[in-house]
Amino acid sequence: MSDFLYGRWPVLESLRANRRAFEQLLILETADTRGPIEEIISAAETRDVPVHRVPRRVIDDLAHNANHQGVVLRCKSYPYADLHELLETSMLRHEKNFFLALDLVQDPQNVGSLLRIADAVGIHGILLQERRGVGVTPAVVAASSGAVEHLLVAQVTNLVHTLKELKDNDVWIAGLDIGPNILPLDRTDLNINLCLVLGSEGSGLRRLVRDTCDLLVTLPMRGHVESLNVSTAGSVALYSAWQARGWQGWALAQE
Amino acid sequence: MSDFLYGRWPVLESLRANRRAFEQLLILETADTRGPIEEIISAAETRDVPVHRVPRRVIDDLAHNANHQGVVLRCKSYPYADLHELLETSMLRHEKNFFLALDLVQDPQNVGSLLRIADAVGIHGILLQERRGVGVTPAVVAASSGAVEHLLVAQVTNLVHTLKELKDNDVWIAGLDIGPNILPLDRTDLNINLCLVLGSEGSGLRRLVRDTCDLLVTLPMRGHVESLNVSTAGSVALYSAWQARGWQGWALAQE
Repeated sequence: MSDFLYGRWPVLESLRANRRAFEQLLILETADTRGPIEEIISAAETRDVPVHRVPRRVIDDLAHNANHQGVVLRCKSYPYADLHELLETSMLRHEKNFFLALDLVQDPQNVGSLLRIADAVGIHGILLQERRGVGVTPAVVAASSGAVEHLLVAQVTNLVHTLKELKDNDVWIAGLDIGPNILPLDRTDLNINLCLVLGSEGSGLRRLVRDTCDLLVTLPMRGHVESLNVSTAGSVALYSAWQARGWQGWALAQE
Repeated sequence: MSDFLYGRWPVLESLRANRRAFEQLLILETADTRGPIEEIISAAETRDVPVHRVPRRVIDDLAHNANHQGVVLRCKSYPYADLHELLETSMLRHEKNFFLALDLVQDPQNVGSLLRIADAVGIHGILLQERRGVGVTPAVVAASSGAVEHLLVAQVTNLVHTLKELKDNDVWIAGLDIGPNILPLDRTDLNINLCLVLGSEGSGLRRLVRDTCDLLVTLPMRGHVESLNVSTAGSVALYSAWQARGWQGWALAQE
């Protein structure tokens, strides 16, 4: 099966990451080939990917009328990783495990945003529940601005089972939840071998997933509107965890 | 001028906040009037707002084909506050000032998300640059899930001038910026009389606005994608500031 990635950043990051088999780069025939498009074409040519100029209706159709910015990349589907590779990444980086698990998050926009933040905080890998949850579709790639092309994502058939495997590997499972008597993020030491788990938009963590967690953390809230979007809450939680780890890996000299 | 607010939460929160003059509540004629719609109708009736059942094409048209969920509220335009009211709110709450200023943020979705978080962290007031920035439109109300109906928002003609007025009132102006030699959020004491300033999606803070800031703070980033969405970065910054203030006003007993 082929994927049709669309949008300038998603296509460019996919080519840069160079992890998929690329088939064709399609550029809108009327597109200006200087600037960003030029960089994309050059990245494609370096990797021997054929480049074709096509009319608008072809590109609109392949991108399902999404905001393609005149660029579509036909390539093989997303190269998922497995749990072993995720654990190995932490070892190779000499860092405590730093994973994110999404329990049935449905909206590609939310999943994409979360993957983009996950990349920004240097997460080692992502777990996605396979059935009923969203996979790494072109819409998710677009919403992540292409960041997911650089990340290790494992799609698992049974998240509870996988979380237990992580526990066997000395990883602590922390669920983000709402409720009384749950400690706020900053009162919990997140500088540990960590897998942060986020629940779905409507109903949060499933009961079995919550029961599998070693600890629950919450995001304090006041004001009038009852809850935050999962991607907002997740962003704050991811940053909080990275802060607890002393912004490990941040390039800028801090001293 | 009338506004046509749409969507269940936005309409319900607007009625609850009860700060606008309401003209008519329009409900899709085929909508189920039990559950959420029932609550909206009841809130309207309590405030003597006439309720009408209308065909889909009418409601689609008034909501400009946005996701109205069968509900449109015709009302007077948003009741903006002035700087004086914002300062007074801090005094009445006996809290150090906690303001957010948006310098030409353009996308209603971003502005709405930021206002929703601002509500969640208990901000005292918002400053919006009037020209070229976005105002509190029905799209912004929708994107904020109605939170903005409870917030004090001042639209100012010259943000630099207003920030200087805040400085005269002993408020510290902190700009969120990207660049070398800027301290990360958690290395700066944000438990002060604070106005956090966020720049526009494309180009960040304008030079004159940046020069007016008393301090600049940054959000560390690593990974492959170069920057975060303003609403994500802003969410993390707002939570970081609220954390520095000890989650002041959080209802849940923490001890």
